[in-house]
Amino acid sequence: MLKVAFLGLGSIGRPMARRIKEAGFPLAVWNRTPDHVATFAKDLGVQLSKTPGDAIKDTDIVAICLSTSADVEQVLDAGVIGSIKAGAVVLDLTSGDPATSKRIAAKVAAKKVGFIDAPVSGGVKGAEAGTLTVMCGGDAKDLERAKPVIAAFGQKVVHCGPVGAGDAVKAMNQALLALTIWGTGEALVALSKLGVSPSVALEVINASSGRSNASMNLFPERVLTRAFPRTFRLALMDKDARIAAQIARDERVPAPLTQLVADLCTLARRELGEDADHVEAVRVIERWAGQDIR
Amino acid sequence: MLKVAFLGLGSIGRPMARRIKEAGFPLAVWNRTPDHVATFAKDLGVQLSKTPGDAIKDTDIVAICLSTSADVEQVLDAGVIGSIKAGAVVLDLTSGDPATSKRIAAKVAAKKVGFIDAPVSGGVKGAEAGTLTVMCGGDAKDLERAKPVIAAFGQKVVHCGPVGAGDAVKAMNQALLALTIWGTGEALVALSKLGVSPSVALEVINASSGRSNASMNLFPERVLTRAFPRTFRLALMDKDARIAAQIARDERVPAPLTQLVADLCTLARRELGEDADHVEAVRVIERWAGQDIR
Amino acid sequence: MLKVAFLGLGSIGRPMARRIKEAGFPLAVWNRTPDHVATFAKDLGVQLSKTPGDAIKDTDIVAICLSTSADVEQVLDAGVIGSIKAGAVVLDLTSGDPATSKRIAAKVAAKKVGFIDAPVSGGVKGAEAGTLTVMCGGDAKDLERAKPVIAAFGQKVVHCGPVGAGDAVKAMNQALLALTIWGTGEALVALSKLGVSPSVALEVINASSGRSNASMNLFPERVLTRAFPRTFRLALMDKDARIAAQIARDERVPAPLTQLVADLCTLARRELGEDADHVEAVRVIERWAGQDIR
Amino acid sequence: MLKVAFLGLGSIGRPMARRIKEAGFPLAVWNRTPDHVATFAKDLGVQLSKTPGDAIKDTDIVAICLSTSADVEQVLDAGVIGSIKAGAVVLDLTSGDPATSKRIAAKVAAKKVGFIDAPVSGGVKGAEAGTLTVMCGGDAKDLERAKPVIAAFGQKVVHCGPVGAGDAVKAMNQALLALTIWGTGEALVALSKLGVSPSVALEVINASSGRSNASMNLFPERVLTRAFPRTFRLALMDKDARIAAQIARDERVPAPLTQLVADLCTLARRELGEDADHVEAVRVIERWAGQDIR
Repeated sequence: MLKVAFLGLGSIGRPMARRIKEAGFPLAVWNRTPDHVATFAKDLGVQLSKTPGDAIKDTDIVAICLSTSADVEQVLDAGVIGSIKAGAVVLDLTSGDPATSKRIAAKVAAKKVGFIDAPVSGGVKGAEAGTLTVMCGGDAKDLERAKPVIAAFGQKVVHCGPVGAGDAVKAMNQALLALTIWGTGEALVALSKLGVSPSVALEVINASSGRSNASMNLFPERVLTRAFPRTFRLALMDKDARIAAQIARDERVPAPLTQLVADLCTLARRELGEDADHVEAVRVIERWAGQDIR
Repeated sequence: MLKVAFLGLGSIGRPMARRIKEAGFPLAVWNRTPDHVATFAKDLGVQLSKTPGDAIKDTDIVAICLSTSADVEQVLDAGVIGSIKAGAVVLDLTSGDPATSKRIAAKVAAKKVGFIDAPVSGGVKGAEAGTLTVMCGGDAKDLERAKPVIAAFGQKVVHCGPVGAGDAVKAMNQALLALTIWGTGEALVALSKLGVSPSVALEVINASSGRSNASMNLFPERVLTRAFPRTFRLALMDKDARIAAQIARDERVPAPLTQLVADLCTLARRELGEDADHVEAVRVIERWAGQDIR
Repeated sequence: MLKVAFLGLGSIGRPMARRIKEAGFPLAVWNRTPDHVATFAKDLGVQLSKTPGDAIKDTDIVAICLSTSADVEQVLDAGVIGSIKAGAVVLDLTSGDPATSKRIAAKVAAKKVGFIDAPVSGGVKGAEAGTLTVMCGGDAKDLERAKPVIAAFGQKVVHCGPVGAGDAVKAMNQALLALTIWGTGEALVALSKLGVSPSVALEVINASSGRSNASMNLFPERVLTRAFPRTFRLALMDKDARIAAQIARDERVPAPLTQLVADLCTLARRELGEDADHVEAVRVIERWAGQDIR
Repeated sequence: MLKVAFLGLGSIGRPMARRIKEAGFPLAVWNRTPDHVATFAKDLGVQLSKTPGDAIKDTDIVAICLSTSADVEQVLDAGVIGSIKAGAVVLDLTSGDPATSKRIAAKVAAKKVGFIDAPVSGGVKGAEAGTLTVMCGGDAKDLERAKPVIAAFGQKVVHCGPVGAGDAVKAMNQALLALTIWGTGEALVALSKLGVSPSVALEVINASSGRSNASMNLFPERVLTRAFPRTFRLALMDKDARIAAQIARDERVPAPLTQLVADLCTLARRELGEDADHVEAVRVIERWAGQDIR
């Protein structure tokens, strides 16, 4: 049975760790702020390590779930890399960026440790239910080694390509999410100003070629109802869209829409704050136009 | 039984006219270039009028299907308006622009004639099958009067709002189509450069939040296959996206993504020519990046 | 001596009218809100007409200075056109749009009246000093006829081309003004965040290839000093930039920077209000970045 | 007298090195492709070292002038850093990027070596005449130490801020150059389509608020004449604009115009090739619009 360490017990990290434990893997956990997770660890019956170095001792899979790749690199650089045992695999569940993931992979490779970037989609609910989609980048053999652990929380595991490929696919999906939210928002605000009911407009669009997940699900459920539930923070969509824009720039792909929507996310985040939900970005268009979608 | 004139027998006008005739309405038709449609009219057993004025005499519904609202206005201004009988309704099936439609509506209203802008979606196949979606703008009573004729070719008839509302909803749908094609293209070109298989990327995106009609249908069927069938011309998507951009500008809605995608369509049309299909727009991104989606 | 009517006595209209009167031309004036200009007319010793129709009777040059071309068209349509004498010239000093100017020119041409679009640059001070630059569009013979009147307030009179050309050149200049203000703002906000003094940065830029009127004059005098004097309203720069964007769209010139800066002006106007100065647009960038230029 | 090494004898590196030698500094030089510069070194009477390591032995100032910061880092990482003597200063004349410059500075600081990023403006002619503007980032004492060498080729030496500040100011200037070239191009193409003479338009703009170095110098001398001399490559403007865009992104400054113009430069470079001059970017707008500026 693979021994697992789990570093980073945020809102999505906790249910993933729980499912790993419940699948029977020996588990040690660590969190930057131990007080936040003491009860969680106790209830789960796992050891809450004082340092990342303690947690990873003799483990086969080092699962990490932090906010950014820079956070992951910082934790690993702080004395951890040298302690991971040869043959282990770092399974980075962070929604990270390919450039940093590649740098991290090279560092751990020097210690004969594998690396898989494995951002997920499906949210806290998907983590709890074990139905996450997991986008993986890295060597096939490292992925093979980590798969039993991934299977504890992931239903659809996709090998996207070399290290960074998982990050890249995740980021591009999020940029497309941002693009469809923002674009549908522009359309519905303009139509509302013209006196067209947004629900009628969505009915037509959703039967036509311009439809998207945003128009079919997010707008009917969250915008037309003015409910704007806070399920995924705009701040995270901003981070993801900026990674997508960075990838396009690094790869020298002129991607003016991706670049623009990344800036729109950044300014919307500034205007609406760190707690705003991603769909609330449309509030910025509404304010600029002096017209709500209704 | 309503007497109908049909002006403009292009590739989608012909099947609409055929279905109107087959539904039993007395029909007269006109086309700018009569030679193109002489056989069609003969086969259909309808009178091919020499002028629009001849066609519309004593008709209750004047159906028009041309390239642009400017074309419609020009035909009506050339001596036609005065000949339409009071109480008739102009049913404009053109994918037009709201500003011109409003101007036309005001002109015909002065002659006690109604106006419905009624652009359609569903393509030539939908017209042949009578399954078009018809987006209508105008007064409810005018729409009510035209509905039996619309029912001959349209399955889903939506009253979107006042005159211009049909045009506006159609244009916004098309702008969203352009946005999702172009955005998905940017994402897949960048991912291809990173070594990610576009079919794998689409598999993930289509199970995630960034999915759209473009990612779910157009890219798998037309781009991954490199088939690029010519079903809807880029030139028309450009026209529609420019109408959408115009609406946003006229309504003073800052809509930077809509404005940008309209310019991208215009330049792609210039680069790829008048015959290119709308999905071929991604070829421009591929050329700029030196990387095909494969 | 040419008889002159002057319609529209706003802040720049008044000094232009005064200079026309002082140059010896017989003058009648009209303003939509007569109370605002009663004292002005009395002091100047000119007749304040009750209606535009009264003002223009038997005049050779009908000078108009309103907010938009739509305002001009509305005044002319309200019974004025028929009263202008054949052979007269409408001298439209409004910062207008070419499409409307062309339509107006066609209407007055039907009455054998000439039309010159003649927006100015140089501000109220230039009008008072008679040093305005006047950008003229229209027939050379109409311009020749109006020139003595223009010479009363304009120093540099440029014949730019056919009707609308004056409007177009003015609008494009303003769009470039907006572009350099906004672009320089983006650069200086980012440099300020990096710890570079904006005055040092401007010193370098102004000795280098990226310099503009904005970087050489507006930023040192108005932004570095945080003075932001209110000399030209952002609302007017927005109007002008939107005209420029409209021209590019109508001419089918992909102009993504012009389109984008027009939207940026529109949203900045919404955020900062109708009284904000045009240079205050940089405050929006500062707010988005959480960093002032200092 | 300070001993100097000069690494990178490209078209602008050679005249800088020549002036350093002529100012009396003991000099050793190195170039990646020694054959290209053998004659130059011989004529100048300086030692052409086989390796960077040979060139820098016992020198006080290590001047480097390569294409990108990545090139500089690569040369320094290849065994050079350890050989620079403590107390020396690396004077990086490359038009580099702040992030890499900061990383390099940290690496050499660990060897008690200083670092100044010092990109220049003024071109080959300015280098030959010793009239370059030099934008410096780094510690004041390091700059003080390098100043006598800088004075050999630079007339205006500006201390912009900490390490990276020189790079940043240079990049932002170049982005503004790109923005004014592209924006003025959009305006003049649209005006040309409207029938306005571009020379008349420039005459007006250059007397008005939208003027810039591009409109005052580049367009009259290079575009109106259709001369398009090749003095500064579009490929380099692209590189610089991308650095500017990167800075804005890294600093979380929403800078949509800077981002967009960076993509426009990248695509223009792809369309026009590596040898095209920076002003030729307007050819892309002309092609998209089907209208030359004339």
